Amino acid sequence: MAANSIAERDFIRSLYRQASGGRGPLRLGIGDDCAILRPPKGIEIVVTTDFSLENKHFRRDWHPPQSAGHRCLARGLSDLAAMGAKPLAAFLSIAVPKGLEKAYLNGFLRGFMALAKAHSVPLAGGDTAAAPGDELLADITLLGTIPQGKALLRSGAKAGDGIYVTGRLGAAAAELEQLAANATHFKAAKPSEIHPHLFPQPRLAVGQALLKRKLATAAIDISDGLSVDLLHLCEESKLDAEIETATLPLGATLMQALHGGEDYELLFTASRPVPKKLAGVPITRIGTMLPRAGRSPRMSLLDEKGKRNLLKPQGWEHQL
Amino acid sequence: MAANSIAERDFIRSLYRQASGGRGPLRLGIGDDCAILRPPKGIEIVVTTDFSLENKHFRRDWHPPQSAGHRCLARGLSDLAAMGAKPLAAFLSIAVPKGLEKAYLNGFLRGFMALAKAHSVPLAGGDTAAAPGDELLADITLLGTIPQGKALLRSGAKAGDGIYVTGRLGAAAAELEQLAANATHFKAAKPSEIHPHLFPQPRLAVGQALLKRKLATAAIDISDGLSVDLLHLCEESKLDAEIETATLPLGATLMQALHGGEDYELLFTASRPVPKKLAGVPITRIGTMLPRAGRSPRMSLLDEKGKRNLLKPQGWEHQL
Repeated sequence: MAANSIAERDFIRSLYRQASGGRGPLRLGIGDDCAILRPPKGIEIVVTTDFSLENKHFRRDWHPPQSAGHRCLARGLSDLAAMGAKPLAAFLSIAVPKGLEKAYLNGFLRGFMALAKAHSVPLAGGDTAAAPGDELLADITLLGTIPQGKALLRSGAKAGDGIYVTGRLGAAAAELEQLAANATHFKAAKPSEIHPHLFPQPRLAVGQALLKRKLATAAIDISDGLSVDLLHLCEESKLDAEIETATLPLGATLMQALHGGEDYELLFTASRPVPKKLAGVPITRIGTMLPRAGRSPRMSLLDEKGKRNLLKPQGWEHQL
Repeated sequence: MAANSIAERDFIRSLYRQASGGRGPLRLGIGDDCAILRPPKGIEIVVTTDFSLENKHFRRDWHPPQSAGHRCLARGLSDLAAMGAKPLAAFLSIAVPKGLEKAYLNGFLRGFMALAKAHSVPLAGGDTAAAPGDELLADITLLGTIPQGKALLRSGAKAGDGIYVTGRLGAAAAELEQLAANATHFKAAKPSEIHPHLFPQPRLAVGQALLKRKLATAAIDISDGLSVDLLHLCEESKLDAEIETATLPLGATLMQALHGGEDYELLFTASRPVPKKLAGVPITRIGTMLPRAGRSPRMSLLDEKGKRNLLKPQGWEHQL
């Protein structure tokens, strides 16, 4: 972390003040060339990084600042959840454009820190810079811990495994549509209310329960949409998959549930029965993993009438 | 790591192919929700993140693409060097603007991977996105290891300690000036040639030697310029400092040596004599740490005639 200007140093100091205290394995946070972490015994460290770029991942005229900050951290926490990891430390790099209202930046940080606090993740470092263009740019790095060799991978599914999801699907895409139509309505949205797009809840407790109880054979988080993330799981596990339409826990339309992005629910496979709830979150079986029939993964959709259709991966189109 | 488009997935695949093989503690690299690292016993993990933003940290019309990629990684490696750490893994987040020439992106990655290979750092993950503006945006996260409790901190200097630097000072600022005047001249610059600004060499071997031989009481890398980075060391160690002008290993003018940024040399303090070379790099004593006289740190410059002047920290002005 380097500070190039007085404004940057002031900003870093404000991060200092907000960075949480109770640190555990974090030996040294913001303020030296690097942060220092002492890993607990018998663990592995998992690492993920995710951009949050204005006009790509959020819009200043749509997203309340707390939402933008919350979502920045939630993206990374959801990746940890998909591995079954416990968060260890967060690193936030943020580049601030000329003329950004101070209130937006402060709100962004408040939203970020509130979610960090809720999951006891210390902000251990990062970088700050002036942005080269008009957009606020953030990049989040998250470190987590898992017991050695126990991570939930995308590659562990077996033919015959059930396919499961947490929560409901499509609700984030539906809220994004509402946000695009009437952003003013969402100006005062709070993290304590249910807002699947603005304030998604990363499923850390579910991921940890799946790992601890050895329930899941493979897992991924639904960031790009069910059809795309299921494809990743099929690719890495070298299998096909069949989804039963009638079983999908719809949070919106079928199309939004299948292809809507950023639900940040978990998609996982299991060889034995899974409880209907884990860590208070509903779990639904939506299909079955199948042996690979051809060279590339094939996903199908079994509709209510027993008709089988090809499920094509449709990458979530950023609607920003 | 999430892929939102075909172009992104192709790009990730090209990263896959370039990511190095021999992995050691890296159990799982690019391709799942997180990378997995198994920390060796008895170590701590150090973490640093640094932006490399076009028009802030490099310019496409000035910097050959290999230089931009090299410098992106060098910034982070230099932070590891300042802690005495060994690199463990790198994570590269990169956002690509519309219409970026493919050759520039490929060159950036080539420069990045060449330096990674030289220091045996595996590229273990990251994120890719479309950039919201016209600028190429990168953010590097580096993890390193150090023996428990042995990190070289900024806060460990004692009054009476000698102040030392590696290499020469100011040469990077001087080369940046030449680059601004005649970028064409540097189009074919190679990492194998001496280019203090375009291809700085992070002092990892020196940092590790300082740690191993217990020579340094405190250390920092010179990224913002000697006067600013010495101030950080004074602040964290709660001391004053005096520099003897005549001893400075000038790589350019005195002003560039004192205030020029991005030399990526190490600045450290030691209580006992230090060899004239460490890991093949010249080491020069340039001054002495002094007890804190006032409330805030005071740095002075002792000139050839024995006259003492105040040394004011002058943040490096990005000349881009």
